Amino acid sequence: METFFVIPEDQHNAVVEAAFKKRGFSAMEARAASKMAAAATCHGNRTHNAIKALHLDHLFGSGNGGCVPGARIERIPTPFKAVEVWDAHKKLGQATALAAIERAIKLADKYGTGTIAVDNAFHYLWGGGYVLEAAKRGYIAYTCCTAALTEVVPLGGKYPTLGTNPHSWGLPTADALGYPLVIDWATSVVAMGRVQQLAREGGTLPPNAAVDADGNPTTDPAKAVSLLPFGAHKGYGLSLVNELYAAFIGGSLPTLRCRAPVENEKQTPAFYFQVIHPESLASGKFAFGRTQEENVKAVLADIFGHGNEGCTLPGQIEARAASRSRENGGLLFSEAEVSALNEIAREAGRRAWKLEDLRIAK
Amino acid sequence: METFFVIPEDQHNAVVEAAFKKRGFSAMEARAASKMAAAATCHGNRTHNAIKALHLDHLFGSGNGGCVPGARIERIPTPFKAVEVWDAHKKLGQATALAAIERAIKLADKYGTGTIAVDNAFHYLWGGGYVLEAAKRGYIAYTCCTAALTEVVPLGGKYPTLGTNPHSWGLPTADALGYPLVIDWATSVVAMGRVQQLAREGGTLPPNAAVDADGNPTTDPAKAVSLLPFGAHKGYGLSLVNELYAAFIGGSLPTLRCRAPVENEKQTPAFYFQVIHPESLASGKFAFGRTQEENVKAVLADIFGHGNEGCTLPGQIEARAASRSRENGGLLFSEAEVSALNEIAREAGRRAWKLEDLRIAK
Repeated sequence: METFFVIPEDQHNAVVEAAFKKRGFSAMEARAASKMAAAATCHGNRTHNAIKALHLDHLFGSGNGGCVPGARIERIPTPFKAVEVWDAHKKLGQATALAAIERAIKLADKYGTGTIAVDNAFHYLWGGGYVLEAAKRGYIAYTCCTAALTEVVPLGGKYPTLGTNPHSWGLPTADALGYPLVIDWATSVVAMGRVQQLAREGGTLPPNAAVDADGNPTTDPAKAVSLLPFGAHKGYGLSLVNELYAAFIGGSLPTLRCRAPVENEKQTPAFYFQVIHPESLASGKFAFGRTQEENVKAVLADIFGHGNEGCTLPGQIEARAASRSRENGGLLFSEAEVSALNEIAREAGRRAWKLEDLRIAK
Repeated sequence: METFFVIPEDQHNAVVEAAFKKRGFSAMEARAASKMAAAATCHGNRTHNAIKALHLDHLFGSGNGGCVPGARIERIPTPFKAVEVWDAHKKLGQATALAAIERAIKLADKYGTGTIAVDNAFHYLWGGGYVLEAAKRGYIAYTCCTAALTEVVPLGGKYPTLGTNPHSWGLPTADALGYPLVIDWATSVVAMGRVQQLAREGGTLPPNAAVDADGNPTTDPAKAVSLLPFGAHKGYGLSLVNELYAAFIGGSLPTLRCRAPVENEKQTPAFYFQVIHPESLASGKFAFGRTQEENVKAVLADIFGHGNEGCTLPGQIEARAASRSRENGGLLFSEAEVSALNEIAREAGRRAWKLEDLRIAK
């Protein structure tokens, strides 16, 4: 089993915040970034942690004009009370998304459902993190966004004109299961990073995951140039939903998104958030006089009974990782990750961690 | 090419309405049923037409206690203004769903988004038909429901505790494409009807579409007893969304849904509808001063340009079928379907169609 080292969350957050502040972000933005990075690592998400957040900001964000430190979110006036439209003016995605979830919860408290559509956004990293936050607080939450780069070929096509466009749902099932269900994935079979990893390691792609330069499916990662949607027409349709929501909100041509600047063009992604107050859905007519919580528990016990006790529930792996983090009293990082965090610490003018000073995780 | 016969829509509707009235349904319910059956056939949907509607009603509906002709929808009072909860009291699904879409549109006009959660529902047949109706009228629409029977095994499980739980999105793209995008599918790889058809014909199932009695994946339709979700954990997660929405609304144990009556148990499906007014999402800051419609058109032209001109768009096949129906001045049925419609006509005490009197479709 891989060795993990325990870094106390407050130490991690202090370094991540210092690094974001060093790049010009406000204290509030830096806090949003460290909070979401800690949440990702705490829940075992190793692809959307602090290292990725700072790398992404360097490549596409404040390092490259895609993200504007200190940007102020502008709320566009509309007559529609349960939906708000924001122009994020390229504010840090984590700060924007946390504010959007917070505001959507407020709207849901009043209207039953609250929607925030965000134009001119910058990458929010881990969509699952925001819906998890809402679900922990008892709400049903959903988010989708347009992924930065178009890497996915629409079904029957040749050229990548769709993002890996993720969808995330969070469901408040803590009473029933001890943790919220979190359904969170991209609409491509695999990520481009996985293709590159397999190409390096000499592995093989699953069938219908990628296409070669002529648009023909290939399982050879060295020949793969673009990705395919999962589940044929089904994942393809789901990916179109993100692109269309973005088009209705304010996103321009997908193939120019987050690419080299084109004069007068708009090249930002868009976010869509929706929160539902679960009480707003309740008929109150639950079988055997159950409460809504009891009913959800009974339904889940039925689905995962009958010999299905061994199923993994979406959100379960994240919940287990969070338990392990709690038991170890900090965030768990591999040696390579500690080393990458130390580069961040150096950038921020903070002291690096020494492996020999860190506890090894149980 | 298969031969189709043209039945004028008013003749079709008159017979379908007479058949539903004969079974005790009100004039309004019968009209909803004929309208949705005509819409299905007009759009080339041959699995959710009038024949299926009456067959379903016979097996699970008014013929079997699952549906109550003349039932009145009860609106449950809640303080949440943009979400309504209805107890359909087992009213005909088509009448309930049409009313729900109508009401959700009204709420979306006011709040930007309108949600209708329906408890104690009866099968609404073709989810795509309702979101198509809303999208034709310029709205974004979504619906999901719990399918009658649990036929799908959760990932890693053995026993079917999930319905084939469909999701349907309609997007108002008539300005951009000439027709609305309609994304509409079940969360299983195939339907149980397809397994049975392949078993009869000696065919082979796609991999990971079904499991045998021990819960092991099989491509032999004769050994297949339950279905698998599409796209592994992704379709599995999507299917759980329907079950959880239903659980929050008022549905009881999935495995008892629409099965032999159990005393004091609640065995009805639930519906979830959401309509979004597209203007409520618009930042107004579209590139190059485009309107929202122009922006959607530009985005779609980008996605389906660059060598992707041959892609089939979701909703395109339905739109082509609708054009063909219009050009032929009626609904198109095969010889076997005309024969099935004639049985319905006989049940309703109406005159049967003679093939030699019907025009053959171009």
